[in-house]
Amino acid sequence: MHHEIQYRVCYADTDQMGVVYYANYLTLFERSRTEMLRDAGLPYRKLEEEGFYLPVSEACCRYRASARYDDLLTIRSWVREMKGVRLTIASEVRRGEEVLVSGHVVLASVNRDGKPTRLSPRLIESCRAFLEEIV
Amino acid sequence: MHHEIQYRVCYADTDQMGVVYYANYLTLFERSRTEMLRDAGLPYRKLEEEGFYLPVSEACCRYRASARYDDLLTIRSWVREMKGVRLTIASEVRRGEEVLVSGHVVLASVNRDGKPTRLSPRLIESCRAFLEEIV
Amino acid sequence: MHHEIQYRVCYADTDQMGVVYYANYLTLFERSRTEMLRDAGLPYRKLEEEGFYLPVSEACCRYRASARYDDLLTIRSWVREMKGVRLTIASEVRRGEEVLVSGHVVLASVNRDGKPTRLSPRLIESCRAFLEEIV
Amino acid sequence: MHHEIQYRVCYADTDQMGVVYYANYLTLFERSRTEMLRDAGLPYRKLEEEGFYLPVSEACCRYRASARYDDLLTIRSWVREMKGVRLTIASEVRRGEEVLVSGHVVLASVNRDGKPTRLSPRLIESCRAFLEEIV
Repeated sequence: MHHEIQYRVCYADTDQMGVVYYANYLTLFERSRTEMLRDAGLPYRKLEEEGFYLPVSEACCRYRASARYDDLLTIRSWVREMKGVRLTIASEVRRGEEVLVSGHVVLASVNRDGKPTRLSPRLIESCRAFLEEIV
Repeated sequence: MHHEIQYRVCYADTDQMGVVYYANYLTLFERSRTEMLRDAGLPYRKLEEEGFYLPVSEACCRYRASARYDDLLTIRSWVREMKGVRLTIASEVRRGEEVLVSGHVVLASVNRDGKPTRLSPRLIESCRAFLEEIV
Repeated sequence: MHHEIQYRVCYADTDQMGVVYYANYLTLFERSRTEMLRDAGLPYRKLEEEGFYLPVSEACCRYRASARYDDLLTIRSWVREMKGVRLTIASEVRRGEEVLVSGHVVLASVNRDGKPTRLSPRLIESCRAFLEEIV
Repeated sequence: MHHEIQYRVCYADTDQMGVVYYANYLTLFERSRTEMLRDAGLPYRKLEEEGFYLPVSEACCRYRASARYDDLLTIRSWVREMKGVRLTIASEVRRGEEVLVSGHVVLASVNRDGKPTRLSPRLIESCRAFLEEIV
C-alpha cells in the first residue's frame, strides 16, 4: 500500500535543459513522505514536538525520464523497512503511468540532542499501513 | 564604497528559459551582503550570537538583463541607510560592466524574542565603511 | 476578484531561523499566478506555445510575519494593471486571515526573440476576470 | 587525484533544523564536478556546444554529519568510472578534515536529441587526470 500526492511543476523547479533539476526530486520525495505520515495519523511536526527527529542519512535516486514544466506529477511513497533506529521510505515520481524517477531515503531516528534513538512506537504503529509487502 | 563577490551560475540556478530564475537573485543578494558584513569585521553569525537578528522586511529587484548558465557574475552590495531599527542594503548583479539586476532589501533589527530593537552599535560602526555617500 | 491556491510549507522552504526563506515567497507567487492564468483559461504553457513570454522585470515583497514549517498557506493573486507591454500581478500569502507577505511582480511581454511585444489580446481578455477594481 | 572547491553555506541552504537541507548537497556536487571539468580543460558549457549532454541518471548521498550556516566547506570530486555512455563521478563534502557527506552521480552521455551516445573522446581524455586509481 502506498500514499500519493499530486504536484504541479513550476518554473522554479526546471533548469536550462527544460526539465526538473535533479536535486529537486528530493524535495518532492520530502513532500510525499510528509503527507504519507500525516495520512498515517502522525504528522512529522507532531513527531518533532514529541522529541523525535528523522534526519536523512542516505538518499538515492534513479532518473529514467524527465519531468517538464507544468507537468502534473504523482508522487508515491511507502515504507520499505522499519528497524532499530532506521526508517527506509521508497518514493516514485510518475507522470500518468510512466515512472520518471524512483528512489529511497533512509531516515535515522534521533532525539533532541541528536543522539540515535529507537523509532517512536507511535511512528512504527502509524507507518504499518504503508509498509511494503514482501511477497 | 561597495563590496564585491564573484559567483558562478550553475544549472541549479537556471530555469527552462535558459536564464537564472528570478527568485535566485535574492539568494545572490544574501551571499553578497553576508560577505560585506564579514569584510566589515562583523560576520552575521557573530551578530546572531550577540542576540541581534536581521530578518528581511522588504525586498525589491529590477531585472534588466538575464544571467545565464556558467556566467561569472559580480555582486556588489553597499549600505543605503541605517536608521532606528532598519538597515537598508542595496545590491547589484553584474556580468562584466553590464548591470543585470539591481535591488535592495530592508532588514529589521530584532532581538532573540523577535522584538524590534535598535541596530547594534557595533553593526552601525562596522557598516559605516560601506555606507552610500549622498552627493 | 482574486484567485487562490493552497500551499503546504515543507522543510525545503525553511531556513535556520525556522521560517520560510525570503526568496521562496517569489516561488509561491509564481505558483499562484500560474494557477490564476490557468483558471482564466490561458495556461502559461499555452501562451509560450503561441510565442508570448512573460519574464519578470520587477519584483517586490513586504514581509510582515513569518510562515513556518507545515503551515497551510493561502496564496492570492490578482491583476493590478495591464498596459502596453507590461502586466502587473499582485500577490499575497496568508495563514488563515493573517497576511504574512504581500508583493507584486511586473511581467514584460516579449516574443521568441526576446523583443518587447504588446500583451497578447487573448491574455488581456483572459486576465480581465482577475483585474483589480479601482474604487 | 581529485579536484576541490570551497563553498560558504548561506541561509538559503539551511533548513529549520539549522543544517544544510539534504537536497542542497546535490547542488554542491554539481558545482564541484563543473569546476573539475573546467579544470580538466573541458568546461561543461563547451561540451554542450559540441553536442554532448550529461544528464544525471543516478545520484546517491550518504549523510554522516551536518553542515551548518556560515561553514566554509570543501567539496571534492573525482572520476570513478568512464565506460560506454556512462560517467560516474564521486563527490565528498568536508568541513576541515571531517567528511560530512559523500556520494556519487552517474551521468549518461546523450546527444542533442537525447539519444544515448558514447562519451566524447575529448571528455575521456580530459577526465583522465581525475580518474580514481584502483589499488
